[in-house]
Amino acid sequence: MILNYENVLKEIIGQSGIEFEEIEKLLPEIEKAKERISEKLKTEYDALQLPYVMSLKTTEIVETAKEIRENYENFVVVGMGGSSLGNQMLHYAFNGIYHNMQSHPKMYFLDNVDPKSTETLLNSLDLSKTMFNVITKSGSTAETIQNFLLITDFLKEHFLDPKKHLIFTTDPEKELLRKLSKEMGIKTFDIPPYVGGRYSVLSAVGLLSAAVENIDISVLLRGAELTRLRVLNSDPINCMAMVLPAIQYLLFKNKGVNINAMFTYSDGLSYLGQWYRQLLSESIGKKYDRNGKEIYTGITPLAVRGTSDQHSILQLFLEGPFDKLIIMVAPKDYKSELSVKGEFVNEESVEYLKGKKYSDLIKAEFDGTKAALKKNGRPFVSIELSEIREEEIGKLIYMLEYSVIMLGELLGVNPVDQPAVELGKQFTYGIMGRKGFESKEEEFERLISPESKYTIENDAL
Amino acid sequence: MILNYENVLKEIIGQSGIEFEEIEKLLPEIEKAKERISEKLKTEYDALQLPYVMSLKTTEIVETAKEIRENYENFVVVGMGGSSLGNQMLHYAFNGIYHNMQSHPKMYFLDNVDPKSTETLLNSLDLSKTMFNVITKSGSTAETIQNFLLITDFLKEHFLDPKKHLIFTTDPEKELLRKLSKEMGIKTFDIPPYVGGRYSVLSAVGLLSAAVENIDISVLLRGAELTRLRVLNSDPINCMAMVLPAIQYLLFKNKGVNINAMFTYSDGLSYLGQWYRQLLSESIGKKYDRNGKEIYTGITPLAVRGTSDQHSILQLFLEGPFDKLIIMVAPKDYKSELSVKGEFVNEESVEYLKGKKYSDLIKAEFDGTKAALKKNGRPFVSIELSEIREEEIGKLIYMLEYSVIMLGELLGVNPVDQPAVELGKQFTYGIMGRKGFESKEEEFERLISPESKYTIENDAL
Repeated sequence: MILNYENVLKEIIGQSGIEFEEIEKLLPEIEKAKERISEKLKTEYDALQLPYVMSLKTTEIVETAKEIRENYENFVVVGMGGSSLGNQMLHYAFNGIYHNMQSHPKMYFLDNVDPKSTETLLNSLDLSKTMFNVITKSGSTAETIQNFLLITDFLKEHFLDPKKHLIFTTDPEKELLRKLSKEMGIKTFDIPPYVGGRYSVLSAVGLLSAAVENIDISVLLRGAELTRLRVLNSDPINCMAMVLPAIQYLLFKNKGVNINAMFTYSDGLSYLGQWYRQLLSESIGKKYDRNGKEIYTGITPLAVRGTSDQHSILQLFLEGPFDKLIIMVAPKDYKSELSVKGEFVNEESVEYLKGKKYSDLIKAEFDGTKAALKKNGRPFVSIELSEIREEEIGKLIYMLEYSVIMLGELLGVNPVDQPAVELGKQFTYGIMGRKGFESKEEEFERLISPESKYTIENDAL
Repeated sequence: MILNYENVLKEIIGQSGIEFEEIEKLLPEIEKAKERISEKLKTEYDALQLPYVMSLKTTEIVETAKEIRENYENFVVVGMGGSSLGNQMLHYAFNGIYHNMQSHPKMYFLDNVDPKSTETLLNSLDLSKTMFNVITKSGSTAETIQNFLLITDFLKEHFLDPKKHLIFTTDPEKELLRKLSKEMGIKTFDIPPYVGGRYSVLSAVGLLSAAVENIDISVLLRGAELTRLRVLNSDPINCMAMVLPAIQYLLFKNKGVNINAMFTYSDGLSYLGQWYRQLLSESIGKKYDRNGKEIYTGITPLAVRGTSDQHSILQLFLEGPFDKLIIMVAPKDYKSELSVKGEFVNEESVEYLKGKKYSDLIKAEFDGTKAALKKNGRPFVSIELSEIREEEIGKLIYMLEYSVIMLGELLGVNPVDQPAVELGKQFTYGIMGRKGFESKEEEFERLISPESKYTIENDAL
C-alpha cells in the first residue's frame, strides 16, 4: 500500500494546495494527539486494539463459519449502519458484486425496512437452508429488531427451529438481543463494550460473515496488526494514518474543503467508500467540541466508483468549486487476464483496445483521471494497494480507522460518539406509539404540521 | 406529488434559512430564464420535448420489448453514465433491488470495466438467452466499446449470431456504433441529436429496458407530459420545477450551501439519487459561465438511502456545518401489507412493533428524521409521491430535469454540456496508445511521475 500526497501541495498543484511546511508545523500537535489516543486504548479507543484481541479469538468464528458453509445455502446479515457496512465492504471487495451468481453460500444484507425488498428477499430464499446473522451493538435498533421479528414469523410459518437459523452478534451484557439469546438459546458472538458500530468490522460483527465466505480473517487481522504496530512505532511524517488526517484537517481549516470523495477503481471496492462514508460522517460531524463549545464541524464524504462515475460526477470535480479533496484508490494488480480480441469488428478507431486486458483499461482510466485532476489544480491523494487481498485490506481498514480518530483529535471532537442519531430515533418511537415516548409524539405533532402554505402540488394542472 | 418547502425558510427554521421574499424577488429572473429555455427547445433543450415526441414512438419500443420478454431470459444494459443511470433508476424504483430473484427477464447493468465483475457476469449468463442493449450517445465511449468488443468475443465463442443478441441505441448519424449498426445489421434505436446522456432517460435509452421489464412507458411519458404542460402554464411560484431551483440557488449563493443530498426512503428509489447525482453534477459543475468568465461553480449532490443511511450520515446532517440542503423523498403509500406478528418474542420493549406494517415503520422513520432536521434548524424540502407508479415517476423525472436546467440558467452556465470530461478521456486514450493521442501520452508522463518524495509505503515496518 502506497500513499502519494504530492498533489495536495501548492508547489505541485498551485493555489488550491497546502504547503508541506503546514504539515510539518502540525506534527507536534499530532504527536500530542497520538499520546491522547494511546491513553484511551482501554476505553473509548478500544477498537484500535481489535487486531490483536481478535487474532486470539478466530478459532470459534472460523469453526462456526465452516459449519455454516457446509450446511446452508444462504447467509443473511441483518443489521444497520456499522452492523452491515463493514460486512458489505469485505464481501464486495473480495468476492465482487456478482458473487451470488457463481458461489455459495449466497450472501445477502438486510439493512433497511423497505417493505418491497424485505418481502421479496424472504419469499425467495429457501429458509430451511438459510442462516440469519442478526447484528446490533445496542441490542435494540428498531429496524433490526423489526426485521428479526419478521424473520421469526417466517421461520415459525415454515416450522423451522430459530436456534438453527439465527446467530446473534451483540453487546455482552446490554439489552434485548442478549436477553433473547439466553432465553431462546441462540448462538451469540460478543461485540466488546467499548467498540462502536462503525469501528466494529474487525470484531465478530465483520469477521463471521467474512469467514463464512472464505475470506481469510487471520490474514485480514494480521494486516491490521502490522499497521497498528507501524502507527505505534513510526514517525508521524512517515505514517499514512497521521499524514492523511493532517491533509484533511489543513484543507478543511485553511482552504474550506468540506467534501472528501473516496474514488475507488473497482466495483467491489466502491463499498469501501460506503463504509468510510459512515466512519467519517459520524465521527467528525459534531456540534460540540470536547469542551462543550458549539463548533458545528464536519467533512462530507462521498463514495465514488471508477470508472463509472467519471461519466457522472467527474465534471464537477474538475471544474466546480475548490471544495473537495479526492482520495483515489486502486489496486496495482487486478489479478485478471480478461482481455479483448474484437475479431468481429474491423475499425481503425477500436484497434487501440484490441488485445488489451481489462485491467489495462481501468488502470489507464485511473491514471488519466489523476492527470486530469492535476492539470486542473484539484487536490487529491492516491492510495495504491498491491492487490485486493486480505492483508492489504486489513492494513487499509486500520489505517482509515486510526486516521479518522486522529482527525477527530485534531478537530477537538469525540470521534466515537453519535449523539444526534438518538433524536430521530426518539421521534420515530413516539410516532410508532412506543411506551415512554409520548412526549416525543407530541413534540413531533408540533414540529411537523400536516398543513402548510408552503406546499406545491403537481397533480392538477 | 407534493413539494413542501417551508423548512428552508427563516421564519420556520431560523438563521440557516432563507426569506420567502428572496424567492419572490427572484421570480422575474426565473420568468426570463423560462423564456430563454423556451427559445432553445428545438436545439440544446430538446430533451424537454421528449415526453410528447416519444409518446408518438412507443409502438416500436413496446413491440421490440415484448419480443425480448418472450424469447430471452436476461437483458443486459451496456452503457456508462447517462446511458445506464436512468435505466437503473426505473428498474430499481419499480421492480426493486431483488427483481432478479423472482422475475424474468433478469436485468443487468454493465456500466464499468471492472475485470472481475465483467468476467463473472458474462461467464454466468446463458448467452443463448441473453439480449445486450449497447447504449452510447457518442457511439464511441471507450468502456462501452470495450464491453461491446468483449461481448462479441463471447458470442463468437458460443457460435451465436450477434444480430440476435445485440440491440444498439445511439446517435442517428455519428460515429462507430451507427456505422457498425449498418454493417452488422443490428437493430438500432435513435437518440435525438440534441439530447445528451444525462437527459436521455425518456428517449429510447431508458424506455426500451423499461418496457422490457413491463414498466408502462406510455404512462411514464404521460406523467412527464403533464409536468411539461404545467411548467409551460403555471406561475413560477406555483411550480416545483421553478421553486426548487430557486431554493437551491439562494441557499448556494447566500448561505454557502454547496451540498444537496437527495434522501430517498426506499431501496429502489435510492437509484433516483444516483441518477440525480449525475444530472446535477455535470449540469452545474462548471468553470466558465455563458460569457466565458471563470466562475468555478457547482453544487455537490449526495445520494442517501433511508432508513439505512440514518445509521451512517444523518449525524453529520444534524450536527455538522450548515452546508447542506436535504431533499427528502418518499411515497405516501408503499402498497405493501407486510407486517410483523412477533409471536416468538414476548418482551415489553418490542410491543410497539407488533402488528405494525413495514410501511408504518419506514414512514415513521421518514417523519422522525424530518422532525430531527427541523429541530436542528437544518434546511430541507420534502417531495412526497402518492405512490411509486409510472405517472408519478414520470412527473418527478421531468420536474427534476427542468429544475436543473433552470438552476443552470440562474447560475449563468450551460447545463447541457460537460467540457471537462473530455480531458480525462484524452489522457486515457494516450496511455492506451490510441493513434492520434501521442501528445497526451507525453503530457501524462510529465504530469504524473512514478517517483515522488511525497509518498509513504505501509509495507515495511
